[in-house]
Amino acid sequence: MLTARLNALRSAASEARLDAIAVVPGPNLEYLTGLHFHLSERITVLFVPVDGELRFVVPALEGTKAEGMPHDTQLHPWTDDDGPAEALGDATEALSLGGARLGVEGRRIRFLELDALAQSGHAPTAIDADPVFASLRMRKGAAELAAMRHAVEIAENAFRAILPMIRVGVSEREIASALFVEVMKGGSGAPPFMPIVAAGVNGSNPHAVPGDSRFAAGDIITIDWGATHHGYASDITRCVAVPGAAPDGRLLSAYAAVRDANVAGRAAARPGATGQDVDRVARAVIREAGLGEFFIHRTGHGLGLETHEEPDMKEGSLMPLEPGMTFTVEPGVYIPGLGGCRVEDDVVITEDGSESLTTLTRELVTPE
Amino acid sequence: MLTARLNALRSAASEARLDAIAVVPGPNLEYLTGLHFHLSERITVLFVPVDGELRFVVPALEGTKAEGMPHDTQLHPWTDDDGPAEALGDATEALSLGGARLGVEGRRIRFLELDALAQSGHAPTAIDADPVFASLRMRKGAAELAAMRHAVEIAENAFRAILPMIRVGVSEREIASALFVEVMKGGSGAPPFMPIVAAGVNGSNPHAVPGDSRFAAGDIITIDWGATHHGYASDITRCVAVPGAAPDGRLLSAYAAVRDANVAGRAAARPGATGQDVDRVARAVIREAGLGEFFIHRTGHGLGLETHEEPDMKEGSLMPLEPGMTFTVEPGVYIPGLGGCRVEDDVVITEDGSESLTTLTRELVTPE
Repeated sequence: MLTARLNALRSAASEARLDAIAVVPGPNLEYLTGLHFHLSERITVLFVPVDGELRFVVPALEGTKAEGMPHDTQLHPWTDDDGPAEALGDATEALSLGGARLGVEGRRIRFLELDALAQSGHAPTAIDADPVFASLRMRKGAAELAAMRHAVEIAENAFRAILPMIRVGVSEREIASALFVEVMKGGSGAPPFMPIVAAGVNGSNPHAVPGDSRFAAGDIITIDWGATHHGYASDITRCVAVPGAAPDGRLLSAYAAVRDANVAGRAAARPGATGQDVDRVARAVIREAGLGEFFIHRTGHGLGLETHEEPDMKEGSLMPLEPGMTFTVEPGVYIPGLGGCRVEDDVVITEDGSESLTTLTRELVTPE
Repeated sequence: MLTARLNALRSAASEARLDAIAVVPGPNLEYLTGLHFHLSERITVLFVPVDGELRFVVPALEGTKAEGMPHDTQLHPWTDDDGPAEALGDATEALSLGGARLGVEGRRIRFLELDALAQSGHAPTAIDADPVFASLRMRKGAAELAAMRHAVEIAENAFRAILPMIRVGVSEREIASALFVEVMKGGSGAPPFMPIVAAGVNGSNPHAVPGDSRFAAGDIITIDWGATHHGYASDITRCVAVPGAAPDGRLLSAYAAVRDANVAGRAAARPGATGQDVDRVARAVIREAGLGEFFIHRTGHGLGLETHEEPDMKEGSLMPLEPGMTFTVEPGVYIPGLGGCRVEDDVVITEDGSESLTTLTRELVTPE
């Protein structure tokens, strides 16, 4: 499998007229090698030329791990005492990178590595290779889908476990922490992100940070959380009403529109449809409810080794969806000064439509 | 406090002959604004000119949060539909960044942002400003130290809770997960890193990833974990012997050397000493035990909002230490094919020496 991925990367790089690709610690390196390294102040770069042996500039203290590389790789280790310059110079010289077209991970490689490359004496021209990696990673295989299903299962079990805790007087932070603990107890790997728990008016911020404000009766709580399994993420949002009073009528109407937009968006997701189609269908439902101005983000994003990857469900996403592609459908409404809600599912394109990996009810939940 | 930090940054930037500094989501942005944003595919850059109003290029869906900026800031929001180019162009034009010296975070800003800046029509020259931020963040104030003490306390309590679980047949992954759960139950914020639990021969890899191998009697288990409080991290390593048999004699000797090197390194940490001094003192202890070749990393790293920050305890670190600086002292020995050990404390420089924030015993622990 790893050999097939390396070959596919080389082939895609060649089509993009790249001479080599530089990979730093993160999801692409794991996808390609099965190995996990740290993105830190210690420069770590795997060079994948279109032909020939790979070269890996790696801190000496990662040497044991680097020897587990599944591909033919020349190691260029460097110590804390010596620094990375010589190792980087040797590798870039051996690969004749001076003036070459080097694909880099636009959303991952930093000024640290780019500047060191520029000063290596064999400075390449850096070109964004994120689309190259996306073309490989977008279509999930059976093992990847199984991992994502497991990540969804862990997350859903954790949600069921904390649901009875949601009541008047509990804080956002307490629920977020309890949910995180349940996700880890359930066997999650490193969680994809810290849970968002946003109560009442905080729900009008899609990326709220849980705080110490306490739930009131009738508050609508937006909970956005996930888990990982073998590196693959789930990313789910559900809304819960705090028992003791009826929620605000305008928020209940907004919730109904968001839920219906989720259903419509998922129904529009099928082979040959585009991310723009899914976005437009979901957005139309919310617009028809008179709430279009409050749906302030795209309808969804790709999901896999990263929480945000390709394909996007948004205006301008014109690539036809294909079986095996996985992404979120997550319409939301955010009304300043009042609150908000979002319903987010993880979806995979099938041969003749799409399937939600998420199985939790999409109705507004009120705990007993 | 935030105003003082902004003023200090401007002053340090001015000394470094920078015209402005660009800050992306992460620890520097939190340090400067108290606000947490996501480093994602959505470009988010705060521009801090040496004089005048700040400008914040920010995704529209973060607008609610961005309005909480504590400094005078002109917002340049952009929507998923429109993309960031126009907002970035407006901000860089208003700040006259074309050809200007723009400080950037070397270990944080990515090709994504750098390339967008280069194509903004007002392309600045990017210069590594990590040392500028380090000069501010190295010396911790009272509130920062209190947060770090709390992060140490959470981590130590979690360690005590899982210690009785360490016995024959338990796996690295099980202990890592249990430790993580205890850290979160103890009230940690987002953990600084996933715990390392390395048993037996895996201990010869300083950055081992916990796996499914099961502990045997007499294994030495290296456990490296931490917690956060208000964003500030702890980072501790202790070693535990699995009950039922005596550990390998060579590893016991190595452990004694590592423990003594930790003691000596901390004793050398005082105002006016350098990171190099601390490193040399600790390293000498291990070298005298005949194990110098197996101590393959620096003696320590700065600790605070980031797990790895300034100052480094290593050869070539010649800046005199000052009261309030916080860092790890963590000598280790890694013997290929046999195993390894490390003893890591979190240390703060005081007026006349140093203090370990960590209070757990440094002896090899054998659970009852």
